Amino acid sequence: MNSKLTFYGDSISGNCYKLQLACAELAIDYDWNELDILTGAARTDEFLKMNPNGKVPIMVLPDGRCLPESNAILCYLADGSSLCGADRFASASVLQWMFFEQYSHEPYIATSRFIVKYLGSPPNRQADLEAKKPGGYKALGVMEQQLTKNDFIANNAFSIADIALYAYTHVAHEGGFDLADYPAVRAWLARIEARPRYVPMRAAAKPA
Amino acid sequence: MNSKLTFYGDSISGNCYKLQLACAELAIDYDWNELDILTGAARTDEFLKMNPNGKVPIMVLPDGRCLPESNAILCYLADGSSLCGADRFASASVLQWMFFEQYSHEPYIATSRFIVKYLGSPPNRQADLEAKKPGGYKALGVMEQQLTKNDFIANNAFSIADIALYAYTHVAHEGGFDLADYPAVRAWLARIEARPRYVPMRAAAKPA
Repeated sequence: MNSKLTFYGDSISGNCYKLQLACAELAIDYDWNELDILTGAARTDEFLKMNPNGKVPIMVLPDGRCLPESNAILCYLADGSSLCGADRFASASVLQWMFFEQYSHEPYIATSRFIVKYLGSPPNRQADLEAKKPGGYKALGVMEQQLTKNDFIANNAFSIADIALYAYTHVAHEGGFDLADYPAVRAWLARIEARPRYVPMRAAAKPA
Repeated sequence: MNSKLTFYGDSISGNCYKLQLACAELAIDYDWNELDILTGAARTDEFLKMNPNGKVPIMVLPDGRCLPESNAILCYLADGSSLCGADRFASASVLQWMFFEQYSHEPYIATSRFIVKYLGSPPNRQADLEAKKPGGYKALGVMEQQLTKNDFIANNAFSIADIALYAYTHVAHEGGFDLADYPAVRAWLARIEARPRYVPMRAAAKPA
């Protein structure tokens, strides 16, 4: 039996990249199964048995138990470490920003990138793309306000909330978002990239 | 100084109702400040100081610290109790369903209810409403599959994931979703409503 964690993910996905970043930070060894979501690999019967919601990434434990949802997996990986927050309120603040990421950031910024970079910005998605601009810039504005006063997004300490938000913010330009007016966000991106265990996103390996 | 938790919320919001359900289950006393989100009470300067993202609910601790995001507040309230999951994997599974709720359920089911019940289903939102149907029924289908095999959504044990998902599922019909084909979901709703400390949503106090 494999004693390592196994992930199923697509390297074009920021949600999947979060796990690579967290495992690098936490020095966790893992096996990676690359799936191509563009050809429906997350909708096969075999995959739907692991995650009926048909989304990557998922984590599989050595005993076979499956866990979907990137941010829930981050919590599992970082459990007991300083990356989860130091006390009850700090832990809840880390989760606050992770729920913010999934509800107020990802549907605008990640989805725009997917439409532009992976669907080739088709004419029938232009209105959709335009409609995502205000929500995306609002999320960046909330982050800018927080990062003007703090080096890291929650409790002013590096956490899995930074990992969750970094994943799609650092490629926001690929979805048409301009970070020029968000200097604190840009400084925070650089701060994360300067961490000793930082690993870049592998999406560049696939054609745009 | 007030020694109780204070919430700011609007009782028409399922996200706010989650906190009332959790406090009832956990026998936590609190003060409630009712805000009217329909008249912009979550966008005043005073409110934005507490939550720059302009969303209810928020929790304020006796020392003044604020916590936004309903599901993060649920984690704070239930911290250390059985409602968070019994071990590392169980806790992550509870969070899995709470992230599912915010990403794959709420944007379809809660938003449809808001458009129908509180915006009066205006003609310019009909296409939007129709577009939310497949996502909402997909989320209900994922829940049905899980609840056919389990009494509760995560780890087969009542948790804050049930509270998070109950809040908008039990009023899904108000957004035009028919639960007739989801018997396991309906049985689960009844199971939650039969709990001794269950409290109903107060939204009925406001005109539809």
